[in-house]
Amino acid sequence: MQLAKVQEAQVESVDVTALAQRLKESRALSTELASHLTEEDMVVQAMDDASPAKWHLAHTTWFYESFVLQPYLARYKQFSDDFSYCFNSYYVSKGARHPRPHRGLLTRPSAQEVLNYRAHVDAHLVEMLDTLAQHPEEYAVVAPLVEVGINHEQQHQELMLTDILALFARQPLQPVFKSDGKSTSSNTAPAPLSWVPFRGGVCEIGHAGPGFSYDNEGPRHHVLIHPFKLAHRCVTNSEWITFIEDGGYEDPLAWLAEGWDVVQRKQWTAPEYWEKKDDVWHQMTLSGLHPVEHAAPVCHVSYYEADAFARWAGKRLPTEFEWEHASTQTTHDNEPNTLGHGRLRSSPAKAIQAETATQMIGDVWEWTSSAYQAYPGYQAPEGALGEYNGKFMCSQYVLRGGSCVTPAGHVRHTYRNFFYPSQRWQFMGLRLADNA
Amino acid sequence: MQLAKVQEAQVESVDVTALAQRLKESRALSTELASHLTEEDMVVQAMDDASPAKWHLAHTTWFYESFVLQPYLARYKQFSDDFSYCFNSYYVSKGARHPRPHRGLLTRPSAQEVLNYRAHVDAHLVEMLDTLAQHPEEYAVVAPLVEVGINHEQQHQELMLTDILALFARQPLQPVFKSDGKSTSSNTAPAPLSWVPFRGGVCEIGHAGPGFSYDNEGPRHHVLIHPFKLAHRCVTNSEWITFIEDGGYEDPLAWLAEGWDVVQRKQWTAPEYWEKKDDVWHQMTLSGLHPVEHAAPVCHVSYYEADAFARWAGKRLPTEFEWEHASTQTTHDNEPNTLGHGRLRSSPAKAIQAETATQMIGDVWEWTSSAYQAYPGYQAPEGALGEYNGKFMCSQYVLRGGSCVTPAGHVRHTYRNFFYPSQRWQFMGLRLADNA
Amino acid sequence: MQLAKVQEAQVESVDVTALAQRLKESRALSTELASHLTEEDMVVQAMDDASPAKWHLAHTTWFYESFVLQPYLARYKQFSDDFSYCFNSYYVSKGARHPRPHRGLLTRPSAQEVLNYRAHVDAHLVEMLDTLAQHPEEYAVVAPLVEVGINHEQQHQELMLTDILALFARQPLQPVFKSDGKSTSSNTAPAPLSWVPFRGGVCEIGHAGPGFSYDNEGPRHHVLIHPFKLAHRCVTNSEWITFIEDGGYEDPLAWLAEGWDVVQRKQWTAPEYWEKKDDVWHQMTLSGLHPVEHAAPVCHVSYYEADAFARWAGKRLPTEFEWEHASTQTTHDNEPNTLGHGRLRSSPAKAIQAETATQMIGDVWEWTSSAYQAYPGYQAPEGALGEYNGKFMCSQYVLRGGSCVTPAGHVRHTYRNFFYPSQRWQFMGLRLADNA
Amino acid sequence: MQLAKVQEAQVESVDVTALAQRLKESRALSTELASHLTEEDMVVQAMDDASPAKWHLAHTTWFYESFVLQPYLARYKQFSDDFSYCFNSYYVSKGARHPRPHRGLLTRPSAQEVLNYRAHVDAHLVEMLDTLAQHPEEYAVVAPLVEVGINHEQQHQELMLTDILALFARQPLQPVFKSDGKSTSSNTAPAPLSWVPFRGGVCEIGHAGPGFSYDNEGPRHHVLIHPFKLAHRCVTNSEWITFIEDGGYEDPLAWLAEGWDVVQRKQWTAPEYWEKKDDVWHQMTLSGLHPVEHAAPVCHVSYYEADAFARWAGKRLPTEFEWEHASTQTTHDNEPNTLGHGRLRSSPAKAIQAETATQMIGDVWEWTSSAYQAYPGYQAPEGALGEYNGKFMCSQYVLRGGSCVTPAGHVRHTYRNFFYPSQRWQFMGLRLADNA
Repeated sequence: MQLAKVQEAQVESVDVTALAQRLKESRALSTELASHLTEEDMVVQAMDDASPAKWHLAHTTWFYESFVLQPYLARYKQFSDDFSYCFNSYYVSKGARHPRPHRGLLTRPSAQEVLNYRAHVDAHLVEMLDTLAQHPEEYAVVAPLVEVGINHEQQHQELMLTDILALFARQPLQPVFKSDGKSTSSNTAPAPLSWVPFRGGVCEIGHAGPGFSYDNEGPRHHVLIHPFKLAHRCVTNSEWITFIEDGGYEDPLAWLAEGWDVVQRKQWTAPEYWEKKDDVWHQMTLSGLHPVEHAAPVCHVSYYEADAFARWAGKRLPTEFEWEHASTQTTHDNEPNTLGHGRLRSSPAKAIQAETATQMIGDVWEWTSSAYQAYPGYQAPEGALGEYNGKFMCSQYVLRGGSCVTPAGHVRHTYRNFFYPSQRWQFMGLRLADNA
Repeated sequence: MQLAKVQEAQVESVDVTALAQRLKESRALSTELASHLTEEDMVVQAMDDASPAKWHLAHTTWFYESFVLQPYLARYKQFSDDFSYCFNSYYVSKGARHPRPHRGLLTRPSAQEVLNYRAHVDAHLVEMLDTLAQHPEEYAVVAPLVEVGINHEQQHQELMLTDILALFARQPLQPVFKSDGKSTSSNTAPAPLSWVPFRGGVCEIGHAGPGFSYDNEGPRHHVLIHPFKLAHRCVTNSEWITFIEDGGYEDPLAWLAEGWDVVQRKQWTAPEYWEKKDDVWHQMTLSGLHPVEHAAPVCHVSYYEADAFARWAGKRLPTEFEWEHASTQTTHDNEPNTLGHGRLRSSPAKAIQAETATQMIGDVWEWTSSAYQAYPGYQAPEGALGEYNGKFMCSQYVLRGGSCVTPAGHVRHTYRNFFYPSQRWQFMGLRLADNA
Repeated sequence: MQLAKVQEAQVESVDVTALAQRLKESRALSTELASHLTEEDMVVQAMDDASPAKWHLAHTTWFYESFVLQPYLARYKQFSDDFSYCFNSYYVSKGARHPRPHRGLLTRPSAQEVLNYRAHVDAHLVEMLDTLAQHPEEYAVVAPLVEVGINHEQQHQELMLTDILALFARQPLQPVFKSDGKSTSSNTAPAPLSWVPFRGGVCEIGHAGPGFSYDNEGPRHHVLIHPFKLAHRCVTNSEWITFIEDGGYEDPLAWLAEGWDVVQRKQWTAPEYWEKKDDVWHQMTLSGLHPVEHAAPVCHVSYYEADAFARWAGKRLPTEFEWEHASTQTTHDNEPNTLGHGRLRSSPAKAIQAETATQMIGDVWEWTSSAYQAYPGYQAPEGALGEYNGKFMCSQYVLRGGSCVTPAGHVRHTYRNFFYPSQRWQFMGLRLADNA
Repeated sequence: MQLAKVQEAQVESVDVTALAQRLKESRALSTELASHLTEEDMVVQAMDDASPAKWHLAHTTWFYESFVLQPYLARYKQFSDDFSYCFNSYYVSKGARHPRPHRGLLTRPSAQEVLNYRAHVDAHLVEMLDTLAQHPEEYAVVAPLVEVGINHEQQHQELMLTDILALFARQPLQPVFKSDGKSTSSNTAPAPLSWVPFRGGVCEIGHAGPGFSYDNEGPRHHVLIHPFKLAHRCVTNSEWITFIEDGGYEDPLAWLAEGWDVVQRKQWTAPEYWEKKDDVWHQMTLSGLHPVEHAAPVCHVSYYEADAFARWAGKRLPTEFEWEHASTQTTHDNEPNTLGHGRLRSSPAKAIQAETATQMIGDVWEWTSSAYQAYPGYQAPEGALGEYNGKFMCSQYVLRGGSCVTPAGHVRHTYRNFFYPSQRWQFMGLRLADNA
């Protein structure tokens, strides 16, 4: 089980109770998020890239059923043949699937039936973990899969939120998912920008050691990094407004050719979800439509926009190696601004003043200039879970650091997220880099 | 108020109580239909041509609000500004509208809020009609609009059912909307076909006299009809199976050039909703998936298919004038097989043996060879209701007779329905004609 | 041979020499038209609807080869297998064909080889006709096919010109096909509009008697025509400018719903080939870019535009029956403004003042409100020529009267041309009608 | 002038006569290639990605006019305003351009006018170089631009050939561009595969030193390369046939997700231009349709196919750094199989047996696993030439080594070509790599 790199040696020391507790909390978070939705909200698909909330709830359950219960719990009976067809995402090895763009047609099974499905699978998982406490060899096989299941569900918790935002932003009534209690935004200028220097050299990149990581974070290997500087904070909304007002969206010479085509075809003039109201830029968020917070990181920009902004600013995006290297060198005193424990922040937090790189974890996924490729020596794992990451290593870019809607504890310095350069419905922003 | 051709003279004789009663029943039927749906079923849009059930419930209500209450009930306050944007279908004169292909994004307002909207508008309509009983001049203006509203809602009741079928047929679970209690289909051969001769001549076509009709059914005018023969019943499923087995969907020479393009592009090999299961043709219906009833009219075929079948059979489709002429000459003893009074038939009834044309009303909308055009002297009414029919008089074909899901009392001999030649999600079939 | 309704009785009286002479002249006209083109002009396809000039030259030759020489000249050997694949247009019965949108890829065979092909086929046709002079029975079979061939080629002569204009208008250099010697256009106001009344009644419509006609012009049959009025001339450019200036292209209420969609999607603001230069409306023509002639019929408008103009003007388009009836009632003193005898007019002639309907033949194809349908009793001919007209009887509209680029002698009062309502690259205009 | 990295120091030593001679030869090669085409062949555009041969001839001339003559030859008068509009490719800084997909509409200016344009510009270039021999400071500015012009034209010579092949392959007549005198292909098995090991380490990558290179080949910088092995030759046609026969195009698990979508949508079952004839795989080439040569490198495969083949074979593609490193370590005894000196090879040469990497230059462009990105420290040059390479650094992959239709002397070890992963009309193949 290469995907979840839990070493055999560590398995024994793993506390079954702790794993069961994390599983339980993770499962509960999904339903807690869904509890802010009506059944109607849960079934609709905002666009091809997004999935309905109900689908996320069911798919994460199918994942446990297919990868944990069916192979390793002999007495387990599949909840329903149809569910496998409906809620398999892209695992060719697991048989035929409902086409992605039609996920929003699934009014049946109902949300309630999906919750029943969740309860059914959860009960079996609990029972299974109980039993495994007595069987360390089996536990060593199953625990890493449960670990993958937890991490997989965390990814879908973030997607559920981004997809709900996509849905709510497309509706005339612009509903509120959950108020974050913030009554106003401010025009306070952001913290002045500091540049943090790094010497680089032959550095180790990628995950190693205990703890979960995805297959695409390894193998840990050496990379030669040239000296560079990194902005201590992300590009802010107020800087983005300057870019807009300076004609950033109108000058083809600032853009990649492909990006300029998209700008023209989609008539982009600002980040996703921005609209001007009474001459003030507002942004649709999970807590509704609000004036943009000047001092907070810009969010919901594509790679094309991030790249154009950097060119306009006379800087560049960092590589994913620079980013990871800087991230491991940095003391992060502040608690990550992520999702969980009853907390939902609808937007990234304001930048703070500092001499070191700040807010690298949580807040916004940061576009890097690195195309999403395999690390040297990478092999996709055997079996269906080998389809998890490897087959997407083409035409996408790496983003690092997690966002304000990434579940707490999910993200790492070595974590590689990836999206197409035109996509911007995730909580995506950027941090500038420069040559030393 | 030209659209609803209720003559002034008749107005006085109209019984306010009767109108109020019909309004009430009509409003109740929509919610009765919706009661078989979950909230999730009500919000999803099966395809661009279809609308969500919730949208139908709200739009028919908006129609009364916009065309009756707002202009004629001074104290009426609009339920919500947003609703008008969301639920205006295509009335340019009534302001901006939510784009048709995005109707399925409207998770808000909720189904419950839409039911509240219905109750609010219904209460005001009842109150208004009560008052009008004392004011015949005002009643003369408002009653025809209420009449349009009833007929408009009846059209949407049929659309609600066709759109639900489209939705359910696209789902892996193929849900049942409402069982029609019919346990089996039969392979009984259909009644043998009789040809009913008509002499034609200069005939009157179009609606006249008392009772409601749409603007596109008039003016009543003279048309020269050549002698012709009409099949006593519609083309049946068993005949269609013969067409399929004879290679009907594989021979370009049987088809209009445009139809053949569609057959190839969409890979049609049978009517909509047909699938072969265990070597038997089944059809998805509102009561679920069933073997096709051999003796019943074929349903869910496009104009292209109807035309190709007729050519293959060495016959032709009737013109809409031939159809109307024959229809008015025919004694229809049997009760139309339409929707209402707690009855829902999920499929057209079996053909019966006869020497006269049968089942012309109810069962299936019958494709005619007539392009949908204005009658001589037609003028679209003034105002927003002038957009109801006239602006669609292009590229569509006329269908006559109503279907098994047309509300009882809605259809007439002069009634002109119209769809594009490639559309087949309505309950559409055909009846053959021939030259005398 | 139903298509060309040359009665057997007439065959004997046909003068072989006359037929051979007409054939020769018709063949010569195609090459004369092509002589104004470079080889590069001849190979390129302006758009999917259009064909390259070389393709027209070859296809019209293939037509004789396939329908006359191969079936009726025993010793004839096909010029080339490949040519049949390349130059069959849409005759499914004649085997596989090169896809229409790829006609412009055929750089081989070369224009010169196509001219050789023409010479080869022409020589055999001449030889065949010579022989047939001695064999009246065979002549009775072949002569009608040659007649179809001549008429078919005349249609392609017009298409060649419309397709060249489409090509030249898409080029930055806006080349001149052939100067018509007209140095300037004028702003002279058009002749004032007279309305010519017609009583209608049961009238005969369709072709009968000697002389060639297409299958779709028959059978001649009775039609009931209601009293109507017809404009004595077509709508002029100056009237169209008024329509534009009155916001005609900006008001959805003036348009068919389908037309308004097209206007918005294609961003139409004027007829095809119009552009404003130095604040004056110009039009690209076969003789280059010129200011529009105010008093001449508007040309290159779609059905949607014609219909919207008529609605804006408070009138309507005539039916094809009204048009034909009026046309046969009218004395046409003026010579039709058509193509041939070394003459090429690049635009329709100026309207003249009159009390009778004028310029019904030649000038511009006039949109009627009639959908293109079969006449009562119509049967497509047996064999491949049955594909000529019948399979296109769907979703198109009838145009009548021929244009300034229709070959002389080709058009008749009963002639039915047909195009889709969105097409406008032909020489298309309109004449208003009104109820009596 | 960063693009052409000709150092000032070297400028003086450059021989004006030699430059003029290379210019002359390069200009002559383009017209020599075009001499095998008819005028019709020269004007047609095979597909959006391709350009007509005439356009290539004109664009390469426009390039000299715009970047050399207009800025640096005071007395030069632009040949034609229109030409600049027609033949500017993508230089936003140089004003409006004819849209790329419409290049095939340009029947005017004619091929002859384009040749006149070439002669006009050539004459001025010669005259200019003569003068510059006396003005070393000016020469230092202009010579690098002429150098870019030569290299630019060489790129278009290869494109001209790939675009002609695309055109000829789409035609039913499958014309021969130029016979390569090879009468037959053979089924000889390819040379057995050797694996050449490389130790890697911190290596220098990128161009440096005298001689021309493109901006995207620098700056030369250090890269850490892990030990690896490289196949001594490219993957051959016979190996590709095995891949096909083993179901390579039918197994989604062998493919990148994006690649599998393309395979299904485009229904790929073999490399571009392959077709099975009498049960033998043939390939359309510049010398016509021939059986594939078993021992020669496979050609015209996309990145997706190259990647899938490597996965199927249990190997991988090399990175561009591995490729460049290996290439500089290798003795290339054999003359590159490139274009020029009257020679045209229509296909890559057969692989030879060796213990070292062979045929890295010429034969086929080799896909690498490297996304096309900027090297560290890369800055696009100032001015319009800055649009040459930089703005395309997104979503494409690097190919190395040149092909059998790359002009002699054009390609280098450091040369970075780039195409989208779905493109395959270039002469593209692959060489496998493996971890050490």
